[in-house]
Amino acid sequence: MYPDKFEDVMYAFHRLPGVGMKTAERYAYEVMNWEPEVLDQFLKALNGIKKVKRCKICGNLSDQDICSICSDDHRNHAQICVVANSKDISAIENMQSYDGTYHVLNGVINTAKGILPDQLNIDSLMNRIDGTVNEVILALDPNIEGETTSLYLSKLLEDKVEVSQLASGIPVGSHLEYADRRTLARAFEGRRKSKSE
Amino acid sequence: MYPDKFEDVMYAFHRLPGVGMKTAERYAYEVMNWEPEVLDQFLKALNGIKKVKRCKICGNLSDQDICSICSDDHRNHAQICVVANSKDISAIENMQSYDGTYHVLNGVINTAKGILPDQLNIDSLMNRIDGTVNEVILALDPNIEGETTSLYLSKLLEDKVEVSQLASGIPVGSHLEYADRRTLARAFEGRRKSKSE
Repeated sequence: MYPDKFEDVMYAFHRLPGVGMKTAERYAYEVMNWEPEVLDQFLKALNGIKKVKRCKICGNLSDQDICSICSDDHRNHAQICVVANSKDISAIENMQSYDGTYHVLNGVINTAKGILPDQLNIDSLMNRIDGTVNEVILALDPNIEGETTSLYLSKLLEDKVEVSQLASGIPVGSHLEYADRRTLARAFEGRRKSKSE
Repeated sequence: MYPDKFEDVMYAFHRLPGVGMKTAERYAYEVMNWEPEVLDQFLKALNGIKKVKRCKICGNLSDQDICSICSDDHRNHAQICVVANSKDISAIENMQSYDGTYHVLNGVINTAKGILPDQLNIDSLMNRIDGTVNEVILALDPNIEGETTSLYLSKLLEDKVEVSQLASGIPVGSHLEYADRRTLARAFEGRRKSKSE
């Protein structure tokens, strides 16, 4: 029904995650109505992704060979927080209370999807564990894949450095009655002494 | 937090309709992980939109100056079905029972959004009404904007040609009890004699 060139645009957008043909059609109409210079800006921006690198130390997205966090002398290089993806770094940085460094695995172990430890940035993490690092904080999602990966890394690292893991439990501001069974169980396991003051 | 080039990609995707920054971030990650040749194919497809034209007769999207429907001698050129957008043509063609031609207004009158009759392809529609056309079928959405536009076009056209409008009422396969008040009222207005055979 549509001209070939228009369908090509629809199929291109259809490659993006979660974009069905209806949404792709909507995007194609939008692009069709853009002024040529707007489209050119769009294409130029997308082409720029080729210049985004991964930091040679931690694997985070970066304009430079070494990212802004790894090259910041004011941060605590004795702490490494291990995350699955660069976007997890944003969440932790927004907290504004962690001043250590990061290590991006670029995924988690997922045998069902064929993602094995040797496809993750684990070797580069091990190389960073010299005498100067005193804590590795595993900040992976509390689900099967994240916990499998945390267990795997803990075993690799525990003889070399102190390894910790983020607490999981009832989210701040939510209600106990709405917590699922596993979250509640985790909150019981991880219970700590109340302080009187 | 992200490198500039990566943020540029996020903001580019954010221009697409309904794409918030979270979705834009997800798309940017996807594009980041594509092989360079996949990205180049994507950019090439998008650039191809510049070659999509609008049919000089009906305003439909086309690879050629005249679209495949307007240049098809087997279709009934005495009927023109007026639609708001090219995508409405797909829906009508899928029905496989209309063999007339189309006219794409490229929108509907919407005073709130500042879309007035002179921004729509109405002049080109009027130019088509010569002695050879005997029916104009208005197939616009049954909402305020669509009906305002239908009324406007009816007044313009009624002295020159027969003008009809799609029936609105209870959708086939749905239930009367779920029809909203206005749809039901429309179905009553548009009631027709039952046939015994």
